[in-house]
Amino acid sequence: MADISPLAPESFPDIPPIVGVEMAAAACGVRYSGKLDLILIRFAEGTEVAGVFTKSQTAAAPIDWCRLALDNGNGKARALVVNSGNANAFNGAAGVASVERTAARAASIIGCAQEHVLIASTGVIGQALPDNKITAALAGMYENLGSDWPAVADAICTTDTYPKGSFRKVKIGETEVNIGGIAKGSGMIAPDMATMLAFVFTDAAIPKNILQFLLSEAADTSFNSITVDSDTSTSDTVLLFATGQAKQETVVAADDAHLQDFRRALNEVMLDLAQQIVRDGEGATKFVEISVSGAADDTAARKIGLAIANSPLVKTAIAGEDANWGRIVMAVGKSGERADRDKLCISMGGIEIAALGQAIKGYDETPVAAHMKGQDIDIAVDVGIGQGQAIVWTCDLTHKYITINADYRS
Amino acid sequence: MADISPLAPESFPDIPPIVGVEMAAAACGVRYSGKLDLILIRFAEGTEVAGVFTKSQTAAAPIDWCRLALDNGNGKARALVVNSGNANAFNGAAGVASVERTAARAASIIGCAQEHVLIASTGVIGQALPDNKITAALAGMYENLGSDWPAVADAICTTDTYPKGSFRKVKIGETEVNIGGIAKGSGMIAPDMATMLAFVFTDAAIPKNILQFLLSEAADTSFNSITVDSDTSTSDTVLLFATGQAKQETVVAADDAHLQDFRRALNEVMLDLAQQIVRDGEGATKFVEISVSGAADDTAARKIGLAIANSPLVKTAIAGEDANWGRIVMAVGKSGERADRDKLCISMGGIEIAALGQAIKGYDETPVAAHMKGQDIDIAVDVGIGQGQAIVWTCDLTHKYITINADYRS
Repeated sequence: MADISPLAPESFPDIPPIVGVEMAAAACGVRYSGKLDLILIRFAEGTEVAGVFTKSQTAAAPIDWCRLALDNGNGKARALVVNSGNANAFNGAAGVASVERTAARAASIIGCAQEHVLIASTGVIGQALPDNKITAALAGMYENLGSDWPAVADAICTTDTYPKGSFRKVKIGETEVNIGGIAKGSGMIAPDMATMLAFVFTDAAIPKNILQFLLSEAADTSFNSITVDSDTSTSDTVLLFATGQAKQETVVAADDAHLQDFRRALNEVMLDLAQQIVRDGEGATKFVEISVSGAADDTAARKIGLAIANSPLVKTAIAGEDANWGRIVMAVGKSGERADRDKLCISMGGIEIAALGQAIKGYDETPVAAHMKGQDIDIAVDVGIGQGQAIVWTCDLTHKYITINADYRS
Repeated sequence: MADISPLAPESFPDIPPIVGVEMAAAACGVRYSGKLDLILIRFAEGTEVAGVFTKSQTAAAPIDWCRLALDNGNGKARALVVNSGNANAFNGAAGVASVERTAARAASIIGCAQEHVLIASTGVIGQALPDNKITAALAGMYENLGSDWPAVADAICTTDTYPKGSFRKVKIGETEVNIGGIAKGSGMIAPDMATMLAFVFTDAAIPKNILQFLLSEAADTSFNSITVDSDTSTSDTVLLFATGQAKQETVVAADDAHLQDFRRALNEVMLDLAQQIVRDGEGATKFVEISVSGAADDTAARKIGLAIANSPLVKTAIAGEDANWGRIVMAVGKSGERADRDKLCISMGGIEIAALGQAIKGYDETPVAAHMKGQDIDIAVDVGIGQGQAIVWTCDLTHKYITINADYRS
């Protein structure tokens, strides 16, 4: 791995075994030599699964497979196979066959239906996946299933500078349940690698429809609220598995009172993983939180937030520790969402800079300039026309981003 | 000015006087000391005007003024006043008053209605415009009206590395008419400056409705088909003035047979100016033409083209002279427009790289790599699902862009 991001958390979290989730990682040599690049996870019978996928119109073959498996498999899962190094994207019919062979092999080893095997893949686009290396490794991995979270988190990484994990323990009624997750991603597409992946596991028993609702809800305010460079991978995948082994009291609706702590904890795990991806953004030196309020609705607020977060001029200003609020005005304007120039208010680091369409009287840049020198940058925008709000997260745009993405072949 | 862009044209074109268009430039000291920063142009009575403006939701006060003037003035124009250095954007009521004072002063000097004065402004956002310096300079400029195109082209520049002009002579029926234009812009928002401006002038007599149709049509395939960094200024303005002094045979419809040469020439002037803006893109070292065909319709094709042109990963790959077609697949997918992974074809420099959803058999990167080392990069994408087509232009994303936009205060 490259130098660890200056924004990385201190260490990988302690994640205990989750009943019904057994895992193994291996170095099967898809692209790298010696680096862990393959994971196999076996789930207990009865495990439910929900998924959220890239909105790309050129999605990779494993995305098609997972969508179909969720449908055909009635929301049940027995296995997850993920490789890094080669994304199996844009490989035509060969890519589809590759996924099918991998699923067939995992199903035969585990003794389950193929539609209960989920597949994800990250790495180079447009190079045929040597799936024979994957299928050859699975049987040996099956003999070594355990609970080595750091190893599986590491095995799905490509250009990430650190493995990403998160964990919460929480109660549903009187029963303790666990939520553990891993993720990878550093650019939306890294050098010539690809993708943001996240896999979250719980021993709670949650029916598939409620599981899908909870996942979609949490994804909206976590993985769908972050951006590094505005680019969207063909392979983005978030899967949530619930083994049901905790056998807690029955859940019948997403708004069950006894499910609310779980729901909050799930949101926390997913937000933690999402923020870790931003903190590993290519070349990032600043972690930026952008809060938008007063927009027409929450969707408009998020779109305005992402317009700010994706603006190269805002991102370079932050890299330059420059409180350039004019660029924020510009980004609000270009979002396409309803705004009124003369109602806009902007703060940075909690300090009001502009209000009601102009710089505040006697604006003193000194405390804002001090805030911009820190590692965590807060930007707040009130659009002033409605009740919509959203928070999004991003990082700055630096010379190192250019170096990583333009210079790596030279 | 900074070092001239390596992509700049060899010289400013020869533009003859256009009858009914008289101009002056001055250094009034709005922000810079000594640099030309103000232009006054007087038009003959009967001059028609058409405009296209930023779609920003936080547009600057001069934009509001021009929109209103076009309506209230019945499409007639007698004067244009443009300053650089300070954009008069996000200045609240003070900004509106500033535009009104400037228009009133110009109207009084020229002896015309205020709604026949058009105004544009480019530079820093959020700082009150010292319009007293502008109004004080106008009378002196009025005494020195002439046809110094290089001076007016220079006076509207901010961070541009060269002034931009274009000219065509063409016939409507048996009568020769002239089309001359100037433009400025280098980032969609430059360091802490702003905006793309273009002003085009002709001595042809064209009724305002036809003039607006011709301008909107030409803007779509020129200024609306370029991008440097995806950021949209609050002050973008394109105005087309027709003095009618050539007194050629009457034009009654945009598709009049005898208007077609003029129409083509107008498109050429505007495309030339638009491409000169891209060639002055901040930090640009490559000029990139992206042709999209086979999209659902022309609008979809342009959106796909701009998704490719705006992708930081595509732009950095081009800077790195890397024929990274996987990033193009990604960008097509993220555009949101209909695409079929297995029908996509990609070429660079005229050489087919991927067809029908995968790399072509025996793809040899050598000639493509040679093309990537050149200054003009051609990318062609066939989406394979319809008849829609579009061409867009952009530049690469380099270390110098970061330096200009992040480091300029340090």
